[in-house]
Amino acid sequence: MEALSYFTAMAGTVAFAVTAVLAVSKRGIDLFGACVLGITTAIGGGTIRDLVLDVPVFWATDLNYIWVGLISSLATFVALPFFKRKFIYLLLLYIDGFGASLFAIQAMDKVWELNFGLPVAPILLGVTTAIGGGVTRDVLAGRKTLIMSRELYATPVLFGCILFSIASYVLPEYRATWASVCIAIIFGIRSAAIHWKLSVPNWLMTQTAEDDLD
Amino acid sequence: MEALSYFTAMAGTVAFAVTAVLAVSKRGIDLFGACVLGITTAIGGGTIRDLVLDVPVFWATDLNYIWVGLISSLATFVALPFFKRKFIYLLLLYIDGFGASLFAIQAMDKVWELNFGLPVAPILLGVTTAIGGGVTRDVLAGRKTLIMSRELYATPVLFGCILFSIASYVLPEYRATWASVCIAIIFGIRSAAIHWKLSVPNWLMTQTAEDDLD
Amino acid sequence: MEALSYFTAMAGTVAFAVTAVLAVSKRGIDLFGACVLGITTAIGGGTIRDLVLDVPVFWATDLNYIWVGLISSLATFVALPFFKRKFIYLLLLYIDGFGASLFAIQAMDKVWELNFGLPVAPILLGVTTAIGGGVTRDVLAGRKTLIMSRELYATPVLFGCILFSIASYVLPEYRATWASVCIAIIFGIRSAAIHWKLSVPNWLMTQTAEDDLD
Repeated sequence: MEALSYFTAMAGTVAFAVTAVLAVSKRGIDLFGACVLGITTAIGGGTIRDLVLDVPVFWATDLNYIWVGLISSLATFVALPFFKRKFIYLLLLYIDGFGASLFAIQAMDKVWELNFGLPVAPILLGVTTAIGGGVTRDVLAGRKTLIMSRELYATPVLFGCILFSIASYVLPEYRATWASVCIAIIFGIRSAAIHWKLSVPNWLMTQTAEDDLD
Repeated sequence: MEALSYFTAMAGTVAFAVTAVLAVSKRGIDLFGACVLGITTAIGGGTIRDLVLDVPVFWATDLNYIWVGLISSLATFVALPFFKRKFIYLLLLYIDGFGASLFAIQAMDKVWELNFGLPVAPILLGVTTAIGGGVTRDVLAGRKTLIMSRELYATPVLFGCILFSIASYVLPEYRATWASVCIAIIFGIRSAAIHWKLSVPNWLMTQTAEDDLD
Repeated sequence: MEALSYFTAMAGTVAFAVTAVLAVSKRGIDLFGACVLGITTAIGGGTIRDLVLDVPVFWATDLNYIWVGLISSLATFVALPFFKRKFIYLLLLYIDGFGASLFAIQAMDKVWELNFGLPVAPILLGVTTAIGGGVTRDVLAGRKTLIMSRELYATPVLFGCILFSIASYVLPEYRATWASVCIAIIFGIRSAAIHWKLSVPNWLMTQTAEDDLD
């Protein structure tokens, strides 16, 4: 079980790094930029979480995260056409979605263990862990961040994190079970969003009318 | 007195979150984006300060800051037209200005207590606390940050922080008095800027001439 | 030797702050913006490094870094035409390049002493220290970050850091010697890039073809 969790975390790290390099590659980046943006995406969210928690950053004690992020970034840079193949890219999108689900709930679990600002802070830090790396990448690459996009990516993560927080607060003895359920829910919504190209519905958006203030 | 200070800090938190959501709403954000940007603006500056000071982040022990930021963001998202009313918006601008004054000087006080890099570091961290959240919001939302704007917002904060630092250094026994005076000065200048729509004067700006380097 | 190293670190700090203000001045910044961006560039990279290492930020115990950054920013703001003179600007570019080399390797040395995630984490943090301030400045100023540019700036830093890491790992007893060698190599490549206006070669770039994904 532990090994499975570790394996999926590494698969998620690969997907984060590869999709990051793919996302920025068309802007023309060099080898250095590819490595920086790939690694930032892979470890950025968890790093912010650990800084806020004031615990050692997770990759300092387990360098595999950096190695995997680095090698994935390099491989993507070298073999862009391969990773852009429709099937491979789609597979990566799903693994990326699973990675985000896993990292969010794992992070909340870590925050919960530390008894840090329950029950709200775990939600903040779960979401930060899942999307912080991607947001940092977008800022560094000068892209519109996913906070401003209509892609159904962060919203399912937020939804799953809120659910996990309520469930863990009300029924703490089943936290491990809830963790699996919430990972499945986030991944399920994200998969549906990828498959049917869903985006955030209109009623969850502010108007972008012309008659606006400022 | 303590209670009054806490109440005004909460009012400032509300104003930070509400004005943040208003500022980005016309770009079309979803519910998730509104909450992230509202909370980031409300607690971002103080979080950076606490990370640099290596003390626990202030919202981990007092979750009210997150709750207030969250509820304000949600309320603004749901009732945009209400918050955009001229009178309400203007009131919010003033409270926001007061919040920035209060947070800056309170932060300096905290840094001073910790005897951290006196007398310069308190200025850096005071300014960071007051504007760090808003700057982070602008970066995440892809807006021009207020560092690059001519709005008279950060400059009065800087001025008040420098004044407080000099005064506290020279006359440490009156620090509490100076704190109130400097909050009043920052808020006074900011209020004047809001009322008369003042911006940073030309002689405090670099030329934006065409014949420029690079 | 110690004194020489300190003096060059201060010269690097000056160059970081001055080139930062010059780089953004044509966009029209005010005095406040100049100070924020100058100081951020000068101390930003090392601050991120120290936060990740969970050690006190370097400028808290030695305020000279802030003073030097502040005075350099102010001087540049006041005397822009002087600093834009061809000879002065070129000199600053070289000192800036030397500063980046020195800060990168000094940072790696610090990380090595702390036995933090050897041998990979020192590379990450060396690069972060050298370019983190400049990248933060670009993000705050809304400029394209150097991660996305073809300027030969970050790549030599990365190359020197990798070399230093391998050398220190294989021959730890010669670390001090390797440090000097790697500083010289980074500075050498950077100087060549400034002199011959070199940029990152095509084979180290992704294609920016039209027929691209997304």
